Amino acid sequence: MLKGHRTWVFESKPVLLASSAIGGPFEAQGPLADDFDILHKDTWLGQDSFEKAEKKLLEQACEIAIEKAGLKKEDIQFFLSGDLMNQIISSSFTARTLGSAFLGIYGACSSSMEGLALAALIVNSKSAKYALAGTSSHNAAAEKQYRYPTEYGGQKPPTAQWTVTGAGAALLGQEGEGPRITSATIGRVVDMGLSDPFNMGGAMAPAAVDTIEAHFRDLGIDPSYYDIIATGDLGRVGHRIATDLLTDHGLKIPPEIFTDCGILIYGKDQPVMAGASGCACSATVTYGHFINRMKKGEIKRILIVATGALLSPLSYQQKESIPCIAHAVSIEM
Amino acid sequence: MLKGHRTWVFESKPVLLASSAIGGPFEAQGPLADDFDILHKDTWLGQDSFEKAEKKLLEQACEIAIEKAGLKKEDIQFFLSGDLMNQIISSSFTARTLGSAFLGIYGACSSSMEGLALAALIVNSKSAKYALAGTSSHNAAAEKQYRYPTEYGGQKPPTAQWTVTGAGAALLGQEGEGPRITSATIGRVVDMGLSDPFNMGGAMAPAAVDTIEAHFRDLGIDPSYYDIIATGDLGRVGHRIATDLLTDHGLKIPPEIFTDCGILIYGKDQPVMAGASGCACSATVTYGHFINRMKKGEIKRILIVATGALLSPLSYQQKESIPCIAHAVSIEM
Repeated sequence: MLKGHRTWVFESKPVLLASSAIGGPFEAQGPLADDFDILHKDTWLGQDSFEKAEKKLLEQACEIAIEKAGLKKEDIQFFLSGDLMNQIISSSFTARTLGSAFLGIYGACSSSMEGLALAALIVNSKSAKYALAGTSSHNAAAEKQYRYPTEYGGQKPPTAQWTVTGAGAALLGQEGEGPRITSATIGRVVDMGLSDPFNMGGAMAPAAVDTIEAHFRDLGIDPSYYDIIATGDLGRVGHRIATDLLTDHGLKIPPEIFTDCGILIYGKDQPVMAGASGCACSATVTYGHFINRMKKGEIKRILIVATGALLSPLSYQQKESIPCIAHAVSIEM
Repeated sequence: MLKGHRTWVFESKPVLLASSAIGGPFEAQGPLADDFDILHKDTWLGQDSFEKAEKKLLEQACEIAIEKAGLKKEDIQFFLSGDLMNQIISSSFTARTLGSAFLGIYGACSSSMEGLALAALIVNSKSAKYALAGTSSHNAAAEKQYRYPTEYGGQKPPTAQWTVTGAGAALLGQEGEGPRITSATIGRVVDMGLSDPFNMGGAMAPAAVDTIEAHFRDLGIDPSYYDIIATGDLGRVGHRIATDLLTDHGLKIPPEIFTDCGILIYGKDQPVMAGASGCACSATVTYGHFINRMKKGEIKRILIVATGALLSPLSYQQKESIPCIAHAVSIEM
């Protein structure tokens, strides 16, 4: 059901039956290592290209989520997935492995919550018994196709962010035990004219703020409703801008509630400049860390605001600014 | 409502309030020229890059559909769009212009019906009053990022297809006058091991057949239910393969019913090898030609089976085969 202009309330509250988080060696050194299902020691995952390694990450995330729910591949009616690769090949090739009906999506790093929102809509409207939402990113593959090939050895400013190597998946069903997807606010494109791809956090912050404001306005609730409100991958720079903007707009969210997956996933000693990014950033932190905390009873209601920078290397070369978006999904115990 | 394993039946029958088709100079020479709303004389559309020209095509398609429906940009709650550009920049930048909430999708040339199916699902479940589905492709832009840069002057075999320069959009609403979206069958990835990007029609034919069979199986109807069953862009080679495969599987569809948008859009005198392709192929033929025929009372029920080749230039370079998909949507008067 639509509330306000762009928030969906899921009356039947689709159940998050199982979720998964896969990471690489760098994620294994971070403070959330215990929340991953698998942490690979090798960024190649035994494959002969980084793209094939990324596909493997996503395939594993899907397999584990399905297995945890006690289901089989054949039970999954719809798979929704997107990633940063050109023509989202990680998702398409994983869909080939899964064999379920496939809805490819793209929202850059907001793909995690775009997929979860649509999967919840599908399950809520009884258009599927089970729907699986997944996403992935791979540091070396994303650097090659989405940013700058690592081989070029380009220096990066302190506002730059580090792409997470990992994948996450969430399996939704109409009935069962688990946290529930209660609402989603779909983002609109916000572009403040920033064009520096090494400061995506700064570019995306206004989009996150726009979606957060729309969420509370559409639902008529306030931030205290949630135990955690986490943006996807604003990093330290973008998080500060988002906090300031929200405060300016009269929506002050206490720091113990307002956080960012791109800040949480790596430790202060890890050389990630302003923090993490990539589709897998919000996916692994949500489907691993936050869901684990919910299951332990530490938190009850979370709002994940996944942020995406909708540029391409080509649009940057053609001097376009960076259109940004954020999709928010609320998960409640 | 889910029927069978992957077909959605839209009980409330969302109304196609308006649709639009924009083309370029080459489309203007084809037999369906009269069905386009705008035909540009210049493939640059006055822009300084082909990518910017493609965005312009999509913006116009959206504007015209909204205008025809007597609505304003602000009335549109959700915009669903995808295209062949890396990181679907045509869609994202058009979403920035529109200002509505945006769900980026990707299904290569099947994006047209993936968007229409999801828009219908959203409207059917009362999750939007109005939803707009759009897609675009541009011959020169697609050759550059999705196939081979035209500047390379590479020769192409007779199985190759010509990317349509154009855009199409369909505006759905809960109530009103117009054709209605009655069901959709979401495709799964089918990959028969073909790896020749110059024969995408051949690669995609089995995916089209798989979705067509699923559609009739899930709904318990047979092909005679429809006046037209049109695949998206199989071209002459793929269409023959699909016809043969369907016949082999005991689902013989008469040639006056079974056709392909990639065959219809260009004349026999146009040098397009096996036919047309590109996201705009099925979009413009459906939203222009077929919808016009429906409004004239010539046809009442159509099934559009948009086909997509989910490869990327990089997956081809890495010797992967081509995962293919097809999404079918039925539109009835």
